[in-house]
Amino acid sequence: VELEFLQWLRNRLPLDMRAPLGLSDDAAILQLSGGGRVVATVDMLTEGVDFLLAQDRPQRIGRKALAVNLSDLAAMAARPFAALVALTLPRKGGMELAKQLFEGIIPLAEEFGVALAGGDTNTWDGPLVISVTLLGDVTEHGPLLRSGAKAGDAIVVTGKLGGSRLGHQFDFRPRVREALWLAENSELHAGLDLSDGLALDLWRMCQASNLGAIVEIARVPVSEDAAKWAANVVDGSTPVEHALSDGEDFELLLAMPPRDAERLVNEQPLACGLTIVGEFVSASGAEDGRIWRREADGSRAPLVPRGYEH
Amino acid sequence: VELEFLQWLRNRLPLDMRAPLGLSDDAAILQLSGGGRVVATVDMLTEGVDFLLAQDRPQRIGRKALAVNLSDLAAMAARPFAALVALTLPRKGGMELAKQLFEGIIPLAEEFGVALAGGDTNTWDGPLVISVTLLGDVTEHGPLLRSGAKAGDAIVVTGKLGGSRLGHQFDFRPRVREALWLAENSELHAGLDLSDGLALDLWRMCQASNLGAIVEIARVPVSEDAAKWAANVVDGSTPVEHALSDGEDFELLLAMPPRDAERLVNEQPLACGLTIVGEFVSASGAEDGRIWRREADGSRAPLVPRGYEH
Repeated sequence: VELEFLQWLRNRLPLDMRAPLGLSDDAAILQLSGGGRVVATVDMLTEGVDFLLAQDRPQRIGRKALAVNLSDLAAMAARPFAALVALTLPRKGGMELAKQLFEGIIPLAEEFGVALAGGDTNTWDGPLVISVTLLGDVTEHGPLLRSGAKAGDAIVVTGKLGGSRLGHQFDFRPRVREALWLAENSELHAGLDLSDGLALDLWRMCQASNLGAIVEIARVPVSEDAAKWAANVVDGSTPVEHALSDGEDFELLLAMPPRDAERLVNEQPLACGLTIVGEFVSASGAEDGRIWRREADGSRAPLVPRGYEH
Repeated sequence: VELEFLQWLRNRLPLDMRAPLGLSDDAAILQLSGGGRVVATVDMLTEGVDFLLAQDRPQRIGRKALAVNLSDLAAMAARPFAALVALTLPRKGGMELAKQLFEGIIPLAEEFGVALAGGDTNTWDGPLVISVTLLGDVTEHGPLLRSGAKAGDAIVVTGKLGGSRLGHQFDFRPRVREALWLAENSELHAGLDLSDGLALDLWRMCQASNLGAIVEIARVPVSEDAAKWAANVVDGSTPVEHALSDGEDFELLLAMPPRDAERLVNEQPLACGLTIVGEFVSASGAEDGRIWRREADGSRAPLVPRGYEH
């Protein structure tokens, strides 16, 4: 639904309401009349789609509802400062559930300096719905967009990818500090957070930047959970296929000049690790597909932008 | 649930995350690191609780989801500038429903200069949930709080009250421009928007301001719909009782010096009308209840803070 609907919405909106729609970035950038800019994002999570109360502890659900938004601001190298939490609770046990959700939200908010600035709490005869809006501001290095990648840039990712269903999808650490550090200590051209898998999210960055990309398959950092997941499921996917398209990694995907990327990969200043997984190329060079996979033997094939579609 | 839960939350939050919680105002006021302030509020509306798709047109539901937030910012004399819309749609017909909701949202957003700055669109096998976050900034006259009323202030309301279930609960005009005009052209001490009825909301303003209040019952502006509603329901409530506690009026409740109030009521500069309905008194003067009703014959009785509890 989302893509088709957003296209409709974009065409339907008057021009002056369209500019800051943030359709192509992880959060919207808003200009204040008194100067200064605010970055804002919202995510709504629902029982049965994003979590199962019968299986996932409410604390982890609450934590995740804030964490996915923190990850969106990290993607733009923005500094989060306040969150609003809207809940619709099942009537039975709703109050206890609300407390448990906040037992997951509060420590994460505190860790990232986010004030809980308000919200709305409702009950109904239906399943849990939780929606978090996160506000941030931008540093002097400005917000990082998806559209800024340049041909020749290195494709850099933080952490390791794949197998998030084994727990990482709830327990991931949003890369807010990492993004701010990198924005201050290197030249970043573009960024997003890997929510739907490297293949699909890289394709999105290429679309926004009007570029192609080549991924060196042997360089993709594969998590241990991707290997475990590949060993346990029978669809024949290898660990690296999981790393390419499982989604919910919530790591950073960055475009930066190769010199900066190589320096950082040599120095490894971040505990989560930094890896160059390929390079951006001009779109005209990609004959029958925007993004390519290059195997260890040098052979090249289109990389299908397949991932976790929310 | 809400009040007890918010009390728990207030105690649970670390001190530095507690200040801007906005528990006692209609929206949170956030200080930006680069200077300037942002006002933010969120409301989540759900099928079966706030509306019935079988009965209420989706355009009206979408409009209302934004309008209640506009009313919250009006209560603080803040200037709205951007909204984020999060939806969870029933799987069947979700896309068509989303478009209809936005056909109600877009004209209202345009009218009030609100950019649609992003959102989140999901589907599930459940009923419609719509959550709107609205951001605003404050003028040089600052945000209006609930807590600023002073003993001797006039109690002033815009428009007419009661009977909102006959249509006003969807079609009301948020008093954004009225609030900004009044903030610029008179001395306002406190404000809120009447969402739960004059009796309950006045009691809340008295609580926040540590005051009592006396309402002159004969002066309460009763809407035609309150009279119609009283004629149609058999609970014995008079039109003025409906005006006191039906809720969802979304008019402004203001505290201002009596001289300003009298001047405004004589001049009637606003199309919606302004009425003085009583005065704030010191809390110690209210022996067995914070708020009082005074009838046309001068007799006085406690005014029960009963209203529409969301």
